[in-house]
Amino acid sequence: MKKIAVLTSGGDAPGMNAAIRAVVRKARFHDMDVVGVYHGFEGLYKGHFELLDLGSVGGIIQRGGTMLYSARFPEFKEDEYQLKAIENLTAQGIEGLVVIGGDGSYRGAMQLTEKGFPCVGIPGTIDNDVSGTEYTIGFDSALNTVVECIDKIRDTATSHENTFVIEVMGRDAGDIALWAGLAAGAESVLIPEESYDIDEIVARLERGATRGKRHSIIIVAEGVMAGSELAKKLEEKTGVKIRVSVLGHIQRGGAPTARDRVIAGRLGARAVELLIEGQIGRAVGIRNHKIVDYELREAYENNHQADISLYTLSKELSI
Amino acid sequence: MKKIAVLTSGGDAPGMNAAIRAVVRKARFHDMDVVGVYHGFEGLYKGHFELLDLGSVGGIIQRGGTMLYSARFPEFKEDEYQLKAIENLTAQGIEGLVVIGGDGSYRGAMQLTEKGFPCVGIPGTIDNDVSGTEYTIGFDSALNTVVECIDKIRDTATSHENTFVIEVMGRDAGDIALWAGLAAGAESVLIPEESYDIDEIVARLERGATRGKRHSIIIVAEGVMAGSELAKKLEEKTGVKIRVSVLGHIQRGGAPTARDRVIAGRLGARAVELLIEGQIGRAVGIRNHKIVDYELREAYENNHQADISLYTLSKELSI
Amino acid sequence: MKKIAVLTSGGDAPGMNAAIRAVVRKARFHDMDVVGVYHGFEGLYKGHFELLDLGSVGGIIQRGGTMLYSARFPEFKEDEYQLKAIENLTAQGIEGLVVIGGDGSYRGAMQLTEKGFPCVGIPGTIDNDVSGTEYTIGFDSALNTVVECIDKIRDTATSHENTFVIEVMGRDAGDIALWAGLAAGAESVLIPEESYDIDEIVARLERGATRGKRHSIIIVAEGVMAGSELAKKLEEKTGVKIRVSVLGHIQRGGAPTARDRVIAGRLGARAVELLIEGQIGRAVGIRNHKIVDYELREAYENNHQADISLYTLSKELSI
Amino acid sequence: MKKIAVLTSGGDAPGMNAAIRAVVRKARFHDMDVVGVYHGFEGLYKGHFELLDLGSVGGIIQRGGTMLYSARFPEFKEDEYQLKAIENLTAQGIEGLVVIGGDGSYRGAMQLTEKGFPCVGIPGTIDNDVSGTEYTIGFDSALNTVVECIDKIRDTATSHENTFVIEVMGRDAGDIALWAGLAAGAESVLIPEESYDIDEIVARLERGATRGKRHSIIIVAEGVMAGSELAKKLEEKTGVKIRVSVLGHIQRGGAPTARDRVIAGRLGARAVELLIEGQIGRAVGIRNHKIVDYELREAYENNHQADISLYTLSKELSI
Repeated sequence: MKKIAVLTSGGDAPGMNAAIRAVVRKARFHDMDVVGVYHGFEGLYKGHFELLDLGSVGGIIQRGGTMLYSARFPEFKEDEYQLKAIENLTAQGIEGLVVIGGDGSYRGAMQLTEKGFPCVGIPGTIDNDVSGTEYTIGFDSALNTVVECIDKIRDTATSHENTFVIEVMGRDAGDIALWAGLAAGAESVLIPEESYDIDEIVARLERGATRGKRHSIIIVAEGVMAGSELAKKLEEKTGVKIRVSVLGHIQRGGAPTARDRVIAGRLGARAVELLIEGQIGRAVGIRNHKIVDYELREAYENNHQADISLYTLSKELSI
Repeated sequence: MKKIAVLTSGGDAPGMNAAIRAVVRKARFHDMDVVGVYHGFEGLYKGHFELLDLGSVGGIIQRGGTMLYSARFPEFKEDEYQLKAIENLTAQGIEGLVVIGGDGSYRGAMQLTEKGFPCVGIPGTIDNDVSGTEYTIGFDSALNTVVECIDKIRDTATSHENTFVIEVMGRDAGDIALWAGLAAGAESVLIPEESYDIDEIVARLERGATRGKRHSIIIVAEGVMAGSELAKKLEEKTGVKIRVSVLGHIQRGGAPTARDRVIAGRLGARAVELLIEGQIGRAVGIRNHKIVDYELREAYENNHQADISLYTLSKELSI
Repeated sequence: MKKIAVLTSGGDAPGMNAAIRAVVRKARFHDMDVVGVYHGFEGLYKGHFELLDLGSVGGIIQRGGTMLYSARFPEFKEDEYQLKAIENLTAQGIEGLVVIGGDGSYRGAMQLTEKGFPCVGIPGTIDNDVSGTEYTIGFDSALNTVVECIDKIRDTATSHENTFVIEVMGRDAGDIALWAGLAAGAESVLIPEESYDIDEIVARLERGATRGKRHSIIIVAEGVMAGSELAKKLEEKTGVKIRVSVLGHIQRGGAPTARDRVIAGRLGARAVELLIEGQIGRAVGIRNHKIVDYELREAYENNHQADISLYTLSKELSI
Repeated sequence: MKKIAVLTSGGDAPGMNAAIRAVVRKARFHDMDVVGVYHGFEGLYKGHFELLDLGSVGGIIQRGGTMLYSARFPEFKEDEYQLKAIENLTAQGIEGLVVIGGDGSYRGAMQLTEKGFPCVGIPGTIDNDVSGTEYTIGFDSALNTVVECIDKIRDTATSHENTFVIEVMGRDAGDIALWAGLAAGAESVLIPEESYDIDEIVARLERGATRGKRHSIIIVAEGVMAGSELAKKLEEKTGVKIRVSVLGHIQRGGAPTARDRVIAGRLGARAVELLIEGQIGRAVGIRNHKIVDYELREAYENNHQADISLYTLSKELSI
């Protein structure tokens, strides 16, 4: 393989730039050329290509976001768009493609592979919700952002003896809420994977109050319900004013953590190796602490499972 | 003076602990005893007192929030509550009181002074909106928190080429919005002190787009309108999806910046000197870069003025 | 088991407080009492004990350092000191002990166990160098501190087009250097586990310079040689002024990262379970991404192995 | 004036990029062209020029270092180098120059002005040591970096009950040491402006120890002596092991604080106005909290005075 391309797709995640850098540098190490595709699959269709050299990825390892931009492009589900993309790629002499994104992006990569254009996938999403890998690039950074925010909110919660509901990202996956809950010592955590009992949350608040603790932090993943809705439910039950904080988009940004950069480096390099070895239609990931690869299809046909032992632990530690 | 008390009141602000520490240590330097009053004016009324020594304020200089807690206590407007507070203070041999808070808290301090109990005020509020001082403790920390959040949001705004409306604190005062707008390079800033022209904001967005810039940051102080409301107005005019982020309570927390700690140290020490000198009913502050003191009344009878030259500059630099 | 004790030993590490908190709360969850031992093994010998309740560990999850203090106490190698410690423990009705520290601390825990007092160990050290576990509490925080420092140094290195040698912790283990090198995109990394070739480092600098890159970051673990020594060697070979930065003690401090807190929570809780189950003389750890336990002896009789694949990758990505 | 140039000189400082951005945008606001000069005065001599537009300064407001690079160039003291620089500037139709740097850089700017080429200066140095202004761009960022480092060191100092000597930047000016000492609650601070008494420092340590405080932080500006030297002196007097941390180059880097960015914006804009108004050979600065301008010569012919009231306060608060 002489020339490959790389793109980012779906929601941006800290560490995507580190992954792009690793793809470019690993490919250059093997004397391959690398083309950056701007705006994800839309750029593939429209031919937004640019040759990347070592200098192009200088000074990006520590930057949040993605230097290749990202975009939603639902049209790419259709055959003609995919064929046009392949036409653009082959016209440039490009022989393989690395797709960095969530499992939604993997579907496009799989379809291109099935139509004859070799792709590999790298899991990049803050939600940690790609099946088949223990870890996705961006999760650690988003998690630390969330925990730093909760640490700040705890300052004011303690000073005013308030209870706070904090809404974090996670439509289908509770990983951010779960890890943040343990890391920030939240009193209760609500995740999409587990049903909740409003009376138990109230009982927990009251138990704390009896013990002299007059501030509490409750974390809710957006997929369960809006923070304001939960606060209202709690106010009805307790008669106490509950504050709400919706962390929102700040969870996506910021310099990636060391871990996200290292994992991005390892997965990016492995993705290039897979293309060289002719192992196509595969996703890289981490299992049992080791770099692995598996069918792209496996990722989007299965559901990610959060580690529910953390949920149990969270309850035990927040007695 | 042999024994003084200190309390924090109103919304908590980073640096309040550093101010408490300075009051305690400066008083101890002059061999005075210091009593901490918990829960602001409510604690004054209820007699929530505790003797503070050098060790009591160890390890707090870098902590957000207030170790003395804060609370709203509207009843304190009434004479009987004030008289009870003075009774509690004098029963403990306390001869003077330092009140750390916003100008609302100054009113209580003035009323106690008028009833014969010597008080001084230290401006502690993230809003920077105390009249008579260029600076309030907590503003610098809140501002840096806001700017760090906007830096993160910009990562994702750039990657997805989105426009963001960011709602920051400031019911009556635009200082946070104004400074944050300049520091983060926002395209538009809306503050309570100035009327806005929705068409000008739209024109600015379109001018950027013409120049190839497809992401923008617009900052709105909560006192102007909710972020969601502004986004809706802009969407109606532009037909483009606008994202919203409400920074909320994280603006209050976190370790104070160096500046907030230094200013807290200086103002805290000066407040103790005023009590020693018998200068009562006064507020400490900063004018022309120097420590000053003035009538408490001056603070709450006048309105704080934001520096509008920053507003003009912001417009010029965001062409 | 009705009553257990917990201590921290060796160099302090961010996340030790989160581990103490987990031990206390998990024990309280099972209705056990917990005694904190101050100053590590010295406190065990001197009987520096204090009963800890839920409130004792409130607000510490996010704090660096260790609330139980730590100290070196070489005398504890001797039998009489160990016997005195056991006497102190049993006099208080304490039936088990959790030791948080590096593998040096495990030796003391093993000796107490052999003398009849049940101990378990939790790996807490920034060096990540405890055999038998993939991960030690504190490593992730120290690593992120190092990477944030290198990011700052890179700003000035780039602006002045300088080459920097950065000395990081790691007497015997290169994990911090290795991970930091990958995460910060260092040009060369020197670790105790691998020999280095000064000419290769020089060649790498020159290759960068040829390509137009006039700043470089070289990371050296303190166990290889002092940063100043490496800089001197490089200056002799290149004739170019090399700057040096020794990160030093800041690597130990700071709020723990989310990962360190979560792992501390999991390991702390598991350690208590081991005591309850009567599994003594064991260390908790992480293998293949799962919580495991194994003989304390295994930890200090074997050497930790750094992941050398990271070293190879680092070289490939810094072409 | 139709076309101006901008350069950065001397040690880099966080906020220099924000100042460059303000110069470019303010000039563009007035329809002037702006040329960036790379590598300071050396680039002026060698003609390293590049036209900067609004896009050139996009996304730099939050970056440390300087996008125009900086360099030492002692040859510029000589007439022929200055004349060559003016020749290069006029050949490009450039009519004015903004120099961002310390007072050393101001000398070059003054000499060019005297030879007929209009210059203005903007104070950019972390040392805060430019005479005639209360504030230099970069000081606030460096100070916060120092304080964050000391906060981390305090974690480990407290846990191990150690005394630390921390060496910070400041060859001739004690501002960083002084402000950091107050902000971090250091026990002693040594600055070039004041003589120190080793016995007083020792007495202070002993007084703390008597009170039960077994950790201490002593800050020394590099201009007084090396941290290791001070530690040795203290060890000789006390017989206690003293740890040393040299913060070094990390003090220069990192994202600028909000304050540094705002001040950079204000001073950058004002510098452009001065050129437009034909007020040349002048430096911008801040006095009494207001933007002012004054003779460049005034800056380098006078010595900056640190605010010694902070020194006194520091002693009082660290009883």
